[in-house]
Amino acid sequence: MAIKVHGPAMSPAVMRVIATLKEKDLDFELVPVNMQTGDHKKEPFISLNPFGQVPAFEDGDLKLFESRAITQYIAHTYADKGNQLLANDPKKMAIMSIWMEVESQKFDPVASKLSFEIAIKPLLGMVTDDAAVAENEEKLGKVLDVYESRLKDSKYLGGDSFTLADLHHAPVMHYLMGTKVKSLFDARPHVSAWCADILARPAWAKALELHKQ
Amino acid sequence: MAIKVHGPAMSPAVMRVIATLKEKDLDFELVPVNMQTGDHKKEPFISLNPFGQVPAFEDGDLKLFESRAITQYIAHTYADKGNQLLANDPKKMAIMSIWMEVESQKFDPVASKLSFEIAIKPLLGMVTDDAAVAENEEKLGKVLDVYESRLKDSKYLGGDSFTLADLHHAPVMHYLMGTKVKSLFDARPHVSAWCADILARPAWAKALELHKQ
Repeated sequence: MAIKVHGPAMSPAVMRVIATLKEKDLDFELVPVNMQTGDHKKEPFISLNPFGQVPAFEDGDLKLFESRAITQYIAHTYADKGNQLLANDPKKMAIMSIWMEVESQKFDPVASKLSFEIAIKPLLGMVTDDAAVAENEEKLGKVLDVYESRLKDSKYLGGDSFTLADLHHAPVMHYLMGTKVKSLFDARPHVSAWCADILARPAWAKALELHKQ
Repeated sequence: MAIKVHGPAMSPAVMRVIATLKEKDLDFELVPVNMQTGDHKKEPFISLNPFGQVPAFEDGDLKLFESRAITQYIAHTYADKGNQLLANDPKKMAIMSIWMEVESQKFDPVASKLSFEIAIKPLLGMVTDDAAVAENEEKLGKVLDVYESRLKDSKYLGGDSFTLADLHHAPVMHYLMGTKVKSLFDARPHVSAWCADILARPAWAKALELHKQ
C-alpha cells in the first residue's frame, strides 16, 4: 500500500490526516506508534519526524510530517479524487488560506489547551487547572464570536463549500463536544450549525470508526 | 496604487508581508495604523481584520489578513515577478509546507515570546519574566537543533532555494539578533550561516528601510 499514516487513530493531529484521506476516498495503512512507551521519541519514528510528534506520513518515497502540511499535500495531489477540499480559484484560495491560518493560530492553541485540561488530564489522573480553563474559555468565546459573524455570511469558513479550513477544526471540536465547552458553540447558532455539519460528514464517521480497532 | 498593507512597518507580521512584496519587486502603499491609540481594535481596521491584529492587506477588491496567508497569496499570484518564493514541483511544495508549518507551530511561539520578553518589554517599561525566558530559550534550542540537522542536508529549510519557509522567520530572527538569544543561533554553524544569509538579502534591507520613515 502506497500511503502510510504513522500514529494513534485517537490523536487529533492524526485524525486530521485520516479525515482528509477518507474525504478523498484513498486507501492507506495506519501504522501504530506506541506513545505510552515513548516510541514517537525514538528510531525509527524520529527519522520520519525529527520533532518526535505524530503523525508522520508516507506516500511512496515522499515522507512528510506536520498534519496541516500533509492534508494540503493530499488535497492538492489527489484533487481529482473524492470530495474537493480546496477553493477553485486563486482569490478564493487566498480567503481559504486566511481561515486555515486562523484555525492554526487562533482556534487550535486555545481549543487544544481546553481539550487537554478538561478531556485528557482526567483520563491521565492529572488535575485540571481551572484558571487555565477559565482563561481559555474566554479566549475561545472571542474566537467563536468572529466565527459566528463570518458564518452568517458564508456557509463554511473558507467559502461556500467545505474545505480544509473547516476540516482542520474537526478533531479538537469532536473532543470538545463531550465537555462543558460545547456550550460556547451552542450559544452561537451559526457556529453550532457549522460544527454539526462538519461532524456529520460521512468521511468523519469513517475516521472515528478507526477508534474501535 | 492597487496593493495596500495596513500596519506599522516595525511589526514582525507586517515585516513578513513587506519582505515578500520587496522580494517580488511589487509597489505598495503602507497605510499607518496607530496601535498606541488602539486603532487596530476599531473601525475601519476591524472590518479588514475582525481579530484586530496587524497586518491587513488589500489587492484591488481582495481583502486579506493573517500574514502567512498574505505571503502565500503574493507568492502564488505574482509567481512571475521578482524572486521565486515557492518550490517548483508538488513534492517539493509539500516539503516546503512542512517547514512553513514548523515555523508557525514550533519556532514562532517560542521565538516571539522571547522577543517580547527580552526586546519589547524593556521598551514598554515592563519587567522581563526571567523564568519564561529560560523556559523558552530551552525550547528554542531544541527547535534549532532540528534546524541544524536539516540545514546540514539542505541549504534552506524548504529545499535548495530560498522560499517562504525561510522568509517567514526573518522578522523575529532580526529582533532576536539584538538580544542574548543570538548565542543560540551562533552556537549552531548551519543555523548561523542560514540566519546570516536570510538577513543579508537585498529585499530584507529594503523592508528595514521603511523603519526609518
